[in-house]
Amino acid sequence: MSNKSKPDRPKARLPRGLQDVSPSEIRQTARMVEAIREVFERYGFEPLETPAIEYTDALGKFLPDSDRPNEGVFSFQDDDEQWLSLRYDLTAPLARFVAANQQGLPRPYRRYQTGPVFRNEKPGPGRFRQFTQFDADTVGAPSVAADAELCMLGADTLEALGLSRGDYVIKVSNRKLLDGVMEKAGVASLADNPEQRMTVMRAVDKLDRLGVEGVEALLGKGRKDESGDFTKGAELTSDQIKAVLTFVDSGAATRKDTLAALKDAVSGSEEGEAGVAELAEMDALWTAAGFGDDRIVIDPSIVRGLEYYTGPVFEADLTAEATDDKGRPVRIGAVASGGRYDGLVERFTGQQVPASGVSIGVSRLLYSLNLINGGAEDEPLGPVVITVFEKDRIADYQRMATELRQAGIRAEMYLGGSGMKAQLKYADKRGAPCVVIQGGDELEKGEITIKDLIEGARLSQEIEDNAEWREARPAQVSVPEGDLVQAVRDILARYGSD
Amino acid sequence: MSNKSKPDRPKARLPRGLQDVSPSEIRQTARMVEAIREVFERYGFEPLETPAIEYTDALGKFLPDSDRPNEGVFSFQDDDEQWLSLRYDLTAPLARFVAANQQGLPRPYRRYQTGPVFRNEKPGPGRFRQFTQFDADTVGAPSVAADAELCMLGADTLEALGLSRGDYVIKVSNRKLLDGVMEKAGVASLADNPEQRMTVMRAVDKLDRLGVEGVEALLGKGRKDESGDFTKGAELTSDQIKAVLTFVDSGAATRKDTLAALKDAVSGSEEGEAGVAELAEMDALWTAAGFGDDRIVIDPSIVRGLEYYTGPVFEADLTAEATDDKGRPVRIGAVASGGRYDGLVERFTGQQVPASGVSIGVSRLLYSLNLINGGAEDEPLGPVVITVFEKDRIADYQRMATELRQAGIRAEMYLGGSGMKAQLKYADKRGAPCVVIQGGDELEKGEITIKDLIEGARLSQEIEDNAEWREARPAQVSVPEGDLVQAVRDILARYGSD
Repeated sequence: MSNKSKPDRPKARLPRGLQDVSPSEIRQTARMVEAIREVFERYGFEPLETPAIEYTDALGKFLPDSDRPNEGVFSFQDDDEQWLSLRYDLTAPLARFVAANQQGLPRPYRRYQTGPVFRNEKPGPGRFRQFTQFDADTVGAPSVAADAELCMLGADTLEALGLSRGDYVIKVSNRKLLDGVMEKAGVASLADNPEQRMTVMRAVDKLDRLGVEGVEALLGKGRKDESGDFTKGAELTSDQIKAVLTFVDSGAATRKDTLAALKDAVSGSEEGEAGVAELAEMDALWTAAGFGDDRIVIDPSIVRGLEYYTGPVFEADLTAEATDDKGRPVRIGAVASGGRYDGLVERFTGQQVPASGVSIGVSRLLYSLNLINGGAEDEPLGPVVITVFEKDRIADYQRMATELRQAGIRAEMYLGGSGMKAQLKYADKRGAPCVVIQGGDELEKGEITIKDLIEGARLSQEIEDNAEWREARPAQVSVPEGDLVQAVRDILARYGSD
Repeated sequence: MSNKSKPDRPKARLPRGLQDVSPSEIRQTARMVEAIREVFERYGFEPLETPAIEYTDALGKFLPDSDRPNEGVFSFQDDDEQWLSLRYDLTAPLARFVAANQQGLPRPYRRYQTGPVFRNEKPGPGRFRQFTQFDADTVGAPSVAADAELCMLGADTLEALGLSRGDYVIKVSNRKLLDGVMEKAGVASLADNPEQRMTVMRAVDKLDRLGVEGVEALLGKGRKDESGDFTKGAELTSDQIKAVLTFVDSGAATRKDTLAALKDAVSGSEEGEAGVAELAEMDALWTAAGFGDDRIVIDPSIVRGLEYYTGPVFEADLTAEATDDKGRPVRIGAVASGGRYDGLVERFTGQQVPASGVSIGVSRLLYSLNLINGGAEDEPLGPVVITVFEKDRIADYQRMATELRQAGIRAEMYLGGSGMKAQLKYADKRGAPCVVIQGGDELEKGEITIKDLIEGARLSQEIEDNAEWREARPAQVSVPEGDLVQAVRDILARYGSD
């Protein structure tokens, strides 16, 4: 036997890090996205959609000193050999869009966008290579009023999704503060040693995950993780490390007190003082608009990992108690984040265009809300199933399905080839509230039988005796053909659906 | 000057065949998709989402006798060298999904899915490399009742989108008919010469575009198009060509008469007679459900281009008169199509799984509906814009924006750095119904001025005298600060929005 004679069938499988989405998650996500959209529209943002594919160079994803795209993005060459990539976020395509359409756009340009993004990275639990983001950005607004607004937008969005005040907090800081602290501590400037600066940023960004000791190691020589892998540190002196850690821990109970502490921490550094002034301006806007310390806090430990942020940075944290399916407490953390980035459009045009944006991780947020609410909601009812009792009468059954549909009721005639038992099992699997049956007896009497599957399932647990069950024929009614729609409506009304 | 000293800026451009979508099209598409979803749900289909990326072999897109993917799909290699591709339709991923999840799914499995698909083909006017489809499929239903239902689904969907009866028609045929005609005419069977069969199918499929003469040429030696390119024909004899063309033209005014004519045309061919029987069964279901000749017709010229169809095939044509922006009549043609494919799941499992589906081209349908309705709808009103009259008072202006938002009104404070004139221009560009102004005078009186931009624009065309204009200050009211929400509501109510 040669290998050739074996049929060469492909495997029905997905590449790792990619997933099919269930009806329940699709419906929940659609509701969530709609609620987010409503808030973003109310804030004056307008929608934009860009394609999933862009030129790699427009996304800024060529490796330094190389003609190869960054391996973190999915890339392929066009007919003319130019490199294309799947977008890895919604911000880089926005910068391309604004640079290409500057003349026609209102300025500031305020847009929201939702859609899938793609990362060619190692997948893990809850970490996918395709996932959905929902972004809002204001491009062309130099004032930090734009950043302040995005923080309020975040708070209002989370409440629109059903979170109570106190179950979330928007944490805000400013990149310029840490710059100021480092300047005062004698750390090389961003211009002189950009790599060291980013190492410091990334170290502070890991405070949540690694704790103070871990960050301390990453600010100094470096850190060996549990697997034995060593991450090189920022090589700060112990005094410098102390300065950074003191700053990071300087958050107080109120925005007012934190601002006072920060003012001290950076006094003398022009950059640092500018950062405090920006936060103070944002604080004034929040206070005037009624967003108090219970919704938005200033937290110096927030830096966010993205290289391109230049001013205010913020994240939305869920603080409500949540438990996993084994009842163990889960810390959720950030479900959205953002900040000011003044350099992205400049890449194309050479002109600095101030911009600020926030990005919600849609799947992560849904997962987190379900944790807090203790699991997903119930599935909606399935369609009413018209069973095929006699195969040569499917035109009659089809007519019944159409009658129900025309009355706005989800309905279908069974389309498989199996008998009544399999049909009832099918209806069950679909979550059908009831099935419609018309056999020869019913036809003669001009009647239709409707079986309430939900009530039926409940009763079958109560009634143990099989004979008693048959006698009672519970949860089943026979009505004249003309009453089909009304009888089904009555059953649907029992379960709060119509 | 070396080339190196020139800043190496990427161009802000999109690859050809890809497009950004405007707010207006996004909103119209969302409404359309929602209406389609509602009908599909009513028919008992449930949602599914699959990722944009799949294994190339799972999509069946390796070139014959080659390890390279088909050039018509966007493909790239994973870390482990396996080929991945962007999905080019929603049917191949469905087959993969069903093959992988057979045990857990209800059978028949009825799902709908919408999302972008990608074709690495030459783009043209209205032909994009990324576009959105909306599909419904029934998998595991051997009965052509499933196909009949998809035709009714198509008709109901188009009416839900606002089309009147008579403005569209669902055209249905069956691949087995043409097979029967060819068998009778002595053309080699599908098994003996599959390529010739497909050439005949593709030729008939072009009837709309090329007319009878063009199809005749393609059935015979071949055809040279306007550009001089030659397409090789099916090499049928003149008798065979005549038989095919007679069959294609055998549609009558009613389904009943067409069925009678078809019965004659294929009598003696087992395959052909099976095709007529299937159409007769579908006709009985349509008639019982009240879908008459004005909505669904049997049209032997319909074959559809896809290789994998095995039985009934159908398309939805818009027949309403439409004109382009120059007032010239436009023939729209098919906006959706589908058919029965019994082989797709078998590719994975070796077991035949009967399936039938329909696919709507979402952008094409929207474009067509707009042609019929004489252009897109009006844009919705933009947000109310709170102008920044005095820069040091933005906290007050922000409070006003928040007040309006909390009342459910779309509103924003101007976030740019420009003066009042630019702000009014901005508000205009955003389509703001009104702007809110509070300068020093108003503040002193505890008042706010609201300028109705729509009424203002209308009046400015009527009032020619500039002095008279200033005198009248039309379309502008001053109200106490506490009446802001009500005053804005009054203006929005004038324009039918709140």
